[in-house]
Amino acid sequence: MKKIIILLISGLFVISCKTEKKTETSISKEFSTEEKIDSTQIKHLFNSALTEGKSYEWLRDLTTNIGSRLSGSEGAAKSVVWSEKLMKSVGLDSVWLQPVMVPHWVRGEKEAASYNFNGEKINVPVCAIGGSIATPVNGITAEVIEVKSLEEAKKLGDKASGKIIFFNGAFDNTLIQTFKAYGGCVGQRYAGASVVGKFGAKAVIVRSMTNGIDDYPHTGSMGYGDIPKSEYIPSAAISSRAAENLSKHLKENPTLKFYLKQSCETLPDTPSHNVVGEIKGSENPDKIMVIGGHLDSWDLGDGAHDDGTGVVQSLEVAYLLKKNNIKPKNTIRIVFFMNEENGLRGATEYARLAKQNNEVHIGALESDAGGHTPRGFSIDANNKNRKLLQSWKKLLAPYGLHDITAGGGGADIGPLKDDHVTLVGYRPDSQRYFDYHHAASDTFDKVNKRELELGSASMASIVYLMDKYLYNNETLKP
Amino acid sequence: MKKIIILLISGLFVISCKTEKKTETSISKEFSTEEKIDSTQIKHLFNSALTEGKSYEWLRDLTTNIGSRLSGSEGAAKSVVWSEKLMKSVGLDSVWLQPVMVPHWVRGEKEAASYNFNGEKINVPVCAIGGSIATPVNGITAEVIEVKSLEEAKKLGDKASGKIIFFNGAFDNTLIQTFKAYGGCVGQRYAGASVVGKFGAKAVIVRSMTNGIDDYPHTGSMGYGDIPKSEYIPSAAISSRAAENLSKHLKENPTLKFYLKQSCETLPDTPSHNVVGEIKGSENPDKIMVIGGHLDSWDLGDGAHDDGTGVVQSLEVAYLLKKNNIKPKNTIRIVFFMNEENGLRGATEYARLAKQNNEVHIGALESDAGGHTPRGFSIDANNKNRKLLQSWKKLLAPYGLHDITAGGGGADIGPLKDDHVTLVGYRPDSQRYFDYHHAASDTFDKVNKRELELGSASMASIVYLMDKYLYNNETLKP
Repeated sequence: MKKIIILLISGLFVISCKTEKKTETSISKEFSTEEKIDSTQIKHLFNSALTEGKSYEWLRDLTTNIGSRLSGSEGAAKSVVWSEKLMKSVGLDSVWLQPVMVPHWVRGEKEAASYNFNGEKINVPVCAIGGSIATPVNGITAEVIEVKSLEEAKKLGDKASGKIIFFNGAFDNTLIQTFKAYGGCVGQRYAGASVVGKFGAKAVIVRSMTNGIDDYPHTGSMGYGDIPKSEYIPSAAISSRAAENLSKHLKENPTLKFYLKQSCETLPDTPSHNVVGEIKGSENPDKIMVIGGHLDSWDLGDGAHDDGTGVVQSLEVAYLLKKNNIKPKNTIRIVFFMNEENGLRGATEYARLAKQNNEVHIGALESDAGGHTPRGFSIDANNKNRKLLQSWKKLLAPYGLHDITAGGGGADIGPLKDDHVTLVGYRPDSQRYFDYHHAASDTFDKVNKRELELGSASMASIVYLMDKYLYNNETLKP
Repeated sequence: MKKIIILLISGLFVISCKTEKKTETSISKEFSTEEKIDSTQIKHLFNSALTEGKSYEWLRDLTTNIGSRLSGSEGAAKSVVWSEKLMKSVGLDSVWLQPVMVPHWVRGEKEAASYNFNGEKINVPVCAIGGSIATPVNGITAEVIEVKSLEEAKKLGDKASGKIIFFNGAFDNTLIQTFKAYGGCVGQRYAGASVVGKFGAKAVIVRSMTNGIDDYPHTGSMGYGDIPKSEYIPSAAISSRAAENLSKHLKENPTLKFYLKQSCETLPDTPSHNVVGEIKGSENPDKIMVIGGHLDSWDLGDGAHDDGTGVVQSLEVAYLLKKNNIKPKNTIRIVFFMNEENGLRGATEYARLAKQNNEVHIGALESDAGGHTPRGFSIDANNKNRKLLQSWKKLLAPYGLHDITAGGGGADIGPLKDDHVTLVGYRPDSQRYFDYHHAASDTFDKVNKRELELGSASMASIVYLMDKYLYNNETLKP
C-alpha cells in the first residue's frame, strides 16, 4: 500500500522523493538553423509573458476601475485617457490620439418586459439592442408572433402588423466554432426590426445570441437599413431562458400579450479617439504593421473578453518585443480602436487617414475573439502570404497554435484590406466566449491570467515572424 | 455609415440581412471510404453530445447535491449509491459494485495558522495535507526555515531540528503544460514531511500547488515513507499568496515564530466500492475496454473538475454509443474508481480482480485532467498501437484534438498496464486546472457545459475507433 501511495499520486504523476526539474521541448532537432533561432526567440517571448506579463493587471485596472466603455460614454472617454497614459508607460517611441466622431446611443432607464401566463406575471430579463429607439413612455403591449429566422419574418407581411415579432432562432450548438453559430443567428438581432418594421410590427424581441440557456439578456448592434424613420420600431433582446419559456407559453396561449418598455435614444455624435502608439522600424520605418483590438465595449458588463483582453494583449506585444530586445525592422503600431461595437468609426477613420497620408501597411493583427486559451490564427491574405504564415505552424504548434487557416482578420483591421496587406485574426478557443458576449457577465473574473498571457505571447510570436519574413520576401513586397 | 454598419458588425462577421445557415467541414474530400464512414460517425457523436448530452446535469447533481467525496466520508458513500442508480438509468447491460476497503482520513476542525510580523497578526489560509497527523491540541509554534525543493531540505540535517520547514518551491509558469509544473513541485507536498521528519523538524508547511497567486490552500496527498512513526510530523498547505508574503517577511525577520494547529487523523479503513457498468461486446464479449474516472475527491471543494467531470464524461461515452446505435464489438466497461486521491485502492483492486478472473483488457481510457476544452490524448502503448492511434489525428483534429502524443494514461488505469493493453489519457486544456485543483474553488460553476460535452464526445470518438480497429488488427491482438 505504502509503495503504491509513493509511486502514484493524485493527478497523473509518478513522483519520486525529490522535486524534479520538468522540461518541455519546443525546439525540434529537425529544425533548420534559422528555425532554431526563431523557435528560441518564440520561447523567450512566451517565457516573458508567463513570468513578467503585465496584461492581466492592466485588464484588471481597465475593467474594474473604468468598467464599460460604450462609444460616447464617460467610461469610453476615461479609457482613452487611461490608454494614452498606459502606452506611454510602456516606452513606445511615440503615442498619439486620433480624433474621431462616434455615435452616442444611451440605454436610459432599465428596460422592463413581462407577460401574464396562467394568471402569473412572468418577468422577462430584457435589454434594448444598441441603436434601437425607445418604446412610448407607457411601453408597448401586443400579441406575439414567433419566428425562427429572418426568412420566416420576411414572409409575415401584413400578419406582422400591430404585433411584437419574437425572433427565436437559436445557436446551432453542433458547430464546433461558436462564431459560426453566432454568424448563423445574428442577422435576427441586426436586421429583425428593419424587416418587420415595414410590415407595421410594433416591436421586435430577439433571443439572446449565446450558446447556452441563461438569464442574461445579451445586447449588440442593430440597424434600420433603408426603411423610413416612420417605420422604425423598438428592438430588444431577452435572455435565452426567457425565450425558451415564452416559446412554450405561446404554444399554450397564442394570444398572450407581451409588454415591453425601454427608453433608449441616440444622441448627437460625440468626439472620441483611437489611441495609437508605435515602435519605429529599424530598417523600414515607413512600412507599418498594426496590432490592435477595440477599446470601446457594450455597456452591460465591463468589456473584459470583448475586447479588454484584445487591447491589453496588443500593447503587451510591444512590451514583450521590448523586454526581449527585439528591434522590429518595420514599424509596429499598436492601435486601440474606438467604436467597433456600434459603428466602426475608429477603424474607418484609421484607414482613411492611412490612405490620405500614403502610409504603407504590410500587415495587421487583431485580437477580438476573447482572451481564452490559444488555438491559432485566421489569415486574410494573398495565397503566397497565407502559405508563408502557414509554414510557421511547426514553430507555433508547441504553444497550442494548431489552427492556422484562411479566414477573416477582424472588423477593425478590415478597412485596411488590400491584396498586399496580410490581415491576421488571433483565434483563441471559442467555447466559452458567447457565455459572456455583450452581457453583464463579461467581467474580469471570467479571464484567466495564463490564457490571457499565452495569447499575448502567441500574438508577439507571429508579429516577430511577420516582421522578419513578410516584407523581406521579395515576391511579397508591397 | 449605414452601409458600414450593415456590412460589419461586432464579432467578426459580415452579415447579410438574412439568418444564414453556417456549416463546418469535418469530413475531408481526401478521406478514404472507411475514413468517411468514421468521420461521419464521429460527427454524429459530437452532435449528440452537444445537443442531447447529459453530463452537465449529472455533474450538477453530483457536485451540488452530494458535494465532496473523500474516501471513507458520507459523501463518498452517497456517491456510490448515486452512481449505481445513474448507470442503471443509462441502460447498460449490467451494473455492479466492486467492494474495496479504503483509507479514512478526516480533517477534523478547521486548521489555523498565523504569525506576528511588525506587531501585526498575520492569519494564514491553511489546510492539513491529506494523510497528515494532527498537531498537539495547542498547536505548534516554531521558527521557520524556508527551502525551495526537497533537495535543499535534504541538506538541512540538524538545522531542521525544532523548526517548521517551509517548502516554497513555486510552479515553473513557463511550462505550457501545467501538469509538468505540478510534477516539478508536488514532491514537496508528498514527501516533505518524511524528509525533514527524520531531522527532528516540528512540522512542514508547503506552498499550495497552483500556477497563480491566490488565497486558497490546496490540499492533496502525502506519505511518511519508511520513517518510524515517532518521526511523523504534521504537514499543511498554505495559500500561494500567504507563501509569497511569509517568504518576504522571513527576509526581514528570520526568527519570526509560526503557529500551526490542525486536528486531522487517520481512522480505520472503511468499506467502499468501485462502481462498474458495461455494454457487452457484440463480437468479442470477453475483450474489455475500460473507460473511467475517479468518483472520490478531496474534501475542500465539490470535486467538480477533479474528477466529477471524468466520471460523468466516462458514463456519457456509453450514453453516446447507445444514442447513436453503435454496438461495440468488444465489451465497453465504465468504471468509477474509488480512492484515486489518497490510496488508489479502487484501481488496485480492479486490476487485481481482473487478473484473478483472467479478464482480457485490450484498452483503457481515463479522464482525470479536468473538464476543460479538448486538446488531445496521451498514449501509453506499444509502438504499433501508439502509431495506430496517432493515425486517427486527421479524424480528430477538426474537434481541437491535435495533441495525440506518447504519455501516461492515468493513475486509475495504470495498474492495467501491459504491453498488449493500450492505455489512453484524455487531455483537455490544462491552463485553468490548477486554479481549482484540490481547493475549495473546485465547484460546478467552474465547468463549462460545451467544454464538458466536447470532452465526452472526444472520448466516445476514440473509443469508437479503438473498438473498431484496435483488436481487429491481427498484429496487435492481445
